[in-house]
Amino acid sequence: MHTPPGPLFTDLYELTMAAVYHAGGMEDSACFSMFVRDCPGRNYFVAAGLADALEALESFRFSEEDLAYLKGQGLFTGDFISRLERFRFSGSVRAIPEGTLFFPEEPVLEVVAPILEAQILETYLLNTIGFQTMIASKAARCVHAAAGRGLVDFSLRRTQAADAGMKVARSVCIAGFDATSNVLAGSTYGIPISGTMAHSYVQAFEDEETAFATYAEMFPDNSVFLIDTYDTLQGAEHAARVGRRMKRQGRRLTGVRLDSGDMVTLSRKVRDILDAAGLPEVKIYASGSFDEWKVAEAVAAGARIDAFGVGTALGVSADAPYLDIVYKLVRYGDRNVRKFSSGKATLAGEKQVFRRTDPAGLWQEDIIGARGEELPDSQPLLLPVMEAGRRRGNGPSLPEIRAHFHNNFGCLPARYKSIDRRLKYPIRISEGLRRLQ
Amino acid sequence: MHTPPGPLFTDLYELTMAAVYHAGGMEDSACFSMFVRDCPGRNYFVAAGLADALEALESFRFSEEDLAYLKGQGLFTGDFISRLERFRFSGSVRAIPEGTLFFPEEPVLEVVAPILEAQILETYLLNTIGFQTMIASKAARCVHAAAGRGLVDFSLRRTQAADAGMKVARSVCIAGFDATSNVLAGSTYGIPISGTMAHSYVQAFEDEETAFATYAEMFPDNSVFLIDTYDTLQGAEHAARVGRRMKRQGRRLTGVRLDSGDMVTLSRKVRDILDAAGLPEVKIYASGSFDEWKVAEAVAAGARIDAFGVGTALGVSADAPYLDIVYKLVRYGDRNVRKFSSGKATLAGEKQVFRRTDPAGLWQEDIIGARGEELPDSQPLLLPVMEAGRRRGNGPSLPEIRAHFHNNFGCLPARYKSIDRRLKYPIRISEGLRRLQ
Repeated sequence: MHTPPGPLFTDLYELTMAAVYHAGGMEDSACFSMFVRDCPGRNYFVAAGLADALEALESFRFSEEDLAYLKGQGLFTGDFISRLERFRFSGSVRAIPEGTLFFPEEPVLEVVAPILEAQILETYLLNTIGFQTMIASKAARCVHAAAGRGLVDFSLRRTQAADAGMKVARSVCIAGFDATSNVLAGSTYGIPISGTMAHSYVQAFEDEETAFATYAEMFPDNSVFLIDTYDTLQGAEHAARVGRRMKRQGRRLTGVRLDSGDMVTLSRKVRDILDAAGLPEVKIYASGSFDEWKVAEAVAAGARIDAFGVGTALGVSADAPYLDIVYKLVRYGDRNVRKFSSGKATLAGEKQVFRRTDPAGLWQEDIIGARGEELPDSQPLLLPVMEAGRRRGNGPSLPEIRAHFHNNFGCLPARYKSIDRRLKYPIRISEGLRRLQ
Repeated sequence: MHTPPGPLFTDLYELTMAAVYHAGGMEDSACFSMFVRDCPGRNYFVAAGLADALEALESFRFSEEDLAYLKGQGLFTGDFISRLERFRFSGSVRAIPEGTLFFPEEPVLEVVAPILEAQILETYLLNTIGFQTMIASKAARCVHAAAGRGLVDFSLRRTQAADAGMKVARSVCIAGFDATSNVLAGSTYGIPISGTMAHSYVQAFEDEETAFATYAEMFPDNSVFLIDTYDTLQGAEHAARVGRRMKRQGRRLTGVRLDSGDMVTLSRKVRDILDAAGLPEVKIYASGSFDEWKVAEAVAAGARIDAFGVGTALGVSADAPYLDIVYKLVRYGDRNVRKFSSGKATLAGEKQVFRRTDPAGLWQEDIIGARGEELPDSQPLLLPVMEAGRRRGNGPSLPEIRAHFHNNFGCLPARYKSIDRRLKYPIRISEGLRRLQ
């Protein structure tokens, strides 16, 4: 779960191509450039997944078992198998740091290495950076929609298998979520964990009020009662009675949770019930099919909701469940190369992304340039993160990445943050890169 | 990657509820029932993921590290932590076997165990069975659409993180895919692997024909040339020249692959080029944004495609990227329980699903009954797979599950196989189950 899946986690063609490169002595250095072509419904992307990618590159080794399996396929020469046995990633990587926003067509990562090495890594790099970037980008939209209200990741039961559940918790934390229900993510990444009870808990008691009171005895400082198992407003009354008793004992009911029905109307009525019971401090949580649009709607309609649990739609990025992210050869030896396939053309050459900011600190435009170009009054986004197969330093901590995202998101002009309006951020190609084509 | 993620892979509320059950001595046996509520665009589901689920149940143990983390949260008593230390799953499981088709509202799995045990497992069971079932169901639609043409899983780079890539390869193999590009899935599950070259390979050579010829030298019996890097028809001419040389040497070019453009027109022209070159045995593979609809369209339009590589849309089930699968308490102690939340009501009591078949061997209807009921002329689908925390036998092999799916799919009346037409398979509730409510 916590370790990279190893070198067999790849498409077979990465290995067959590598075999030809090896046999032909094609050991020249290549540059592969990774970028997102475009994505319906997304004005920006939040870079994520680099920490995993670099860990995988550094620890990339074929085990004896791996080699035995490959040998058994009858495809490869003994000489190539020996080459794989010695395989270590010896190349360099430049990347846009995690938590930084970027846009379609901009390289988010470039690998420079002997072509065999750079090729074999393709599948894993696309998989891990693509998925985490997609989820962080979805989460940023939810954070924007929540307009300051709390957000908790409730997606674990519906993520696409186990590893995704872990990566979702980390990626949404980067983009500003406050907590996750995923205990293993809490333990692995140090993310705050959150959660109290399900409907089954309430049903396991003869009546709802007893269920709440029993819970409060066990967790007097961390009780959020789920009030919709039978009838939400009656549930709120039961919660209020237990909350009042807790208050008399010097305790405090943390909140109640709505999980079905018309959240706007219910939240107002529940707020009234709690306030009338002298419990204005008790918060209202809401969960159940939320995504950025439903959060924005609830906020706009004046729902009295203090925090949202967002699950499935976030955890699978339901409206855009994949990114068209690609990893393209742009240089081999001293030859800059490009592809012409219909609808899939690529720009040749190693690149840099330059970002220009206006005097108020908001971004104006990005320029995709050639690596090594210098553009005045702009900040280069691709930074060296690995050299000769070793990471440069430990990389930022998760709280540092989260803070970096927060600062970054503040520099994106508000119009690009819209969850509905498609708006293309201005990007142009530098003169230097144009000349390379 | 190959081992279950362990007991912390759960929502926090599963543990807080368990803590209350433990403190209150609530050790009565509970039954939880797992079913899919409904899914837009799906007439049927293919059960998958049970092998993983049972392995996880059998090996479910809190490690010292897990317990230290939980202790550090300051939520739980020492007594409850000790209970977790002793935790073993001691319950029983009945389930619809992998590869069997089932329908909305039908329980696909039921767990009977002390409520604390059954509760903690919820998150993992939903995650693993939900995802694999979703993918196997999507794959069955592709297999139906391909109408006998070959299908290869090309999804690895776009699956939602690493674990999903593995589960996709296994789930689509169950539903009839022939091979996967995922080498680790080949090694782990024994699935045939497939793949030859990417555009970057062709670009790494000065010209396309040299790229093909060099590949053919290395893999004389396993060459599929990717012909769209520059111009597909020219690519076909280059492939044909190399293919003819191979033929003169007593070798055989396996195929060519199209990856962009109008596949119907191109496949016909490429077929003509290959046939004119005396290479009618060379197959045409196609990849690039295929899903069940595009496969069906290509087949209907008479594309000369022998096998399809299906990637992203399959690997994330793009049109329906999550299943509304739930795990509901239906009995606690001797009390059958149900939920009334608006739009989320559940049926009380332990269940059985009975299937009736007509004299021609096609399914007529399913009846959701109470466990223990006997309905004449019908086959019960939920079978005992675990007792007292131990699996009953080793379970079927992947080829056996695949064969079982194939037989099962043959019994589904053709009208339910439509990829476009929504049609509800007839399901009713037995008298016995009705009386329980």
